[in-house]
Amino acid sequence: MPRVVVNVMPKPEILDPQGKAVTGALKRIGFDGMTVRQGKRFEVEVDGEITPEVLERVSQAAEKLLANTVIEAYEVVAG
Amino acid sequence: MPRVVVNVMPKPEILDPQGKAVTGALKRIGFDGMTVRQGKRFEVEVDGEITPEVLERVSQAAEKLLANTVIEAYEVVAG
Repeated sequence: MPRVVVNVMPKPEILDPQGKAVTGALKRIGFDGMTVRQGKRFEVEVDGEITPEVLERVSQAAEKLLANTVIEAYEVVAG
Repeated sequence: MPRVVVNVMPKPEILDPQGKAVTGALKRIGFDGMTVRQGKRFEVEVDGEITPEVLERVSQAAEKLLANTVIEAYEVVAG
């Protein structure tokens, strides 16, 4: 089935407490030199072909529901 | 700074209650014909170049901490 991916990440200027916690936890178990930011990945299966209209519709879904655009940025990727 | 992305998704055979909730919510606000699975995206900034060794190290971090490999699958992607 055709798939569109929506990546949602905290905006660069926004604190990311989850990412900070993960970065600290990695350090504690020996993984130094890694800084992590944590976001969400949505895999959206759509009916029919992936057209520019479908991508636009998924973008609207991201804008309205998948991302909180005050604090998060999203990108829509075919495949 | 060089970046490695780790995508973590619920395994296909695992129920995904978050994804189901999102799918239902999209339907209610008028976005029909989309089925969503929800996972996590980690953007990992690493010191130095992205070498096969660095990717292997990030894979180990994913295996140990970022993913729960009983119920989640992960992929490690440069960039």
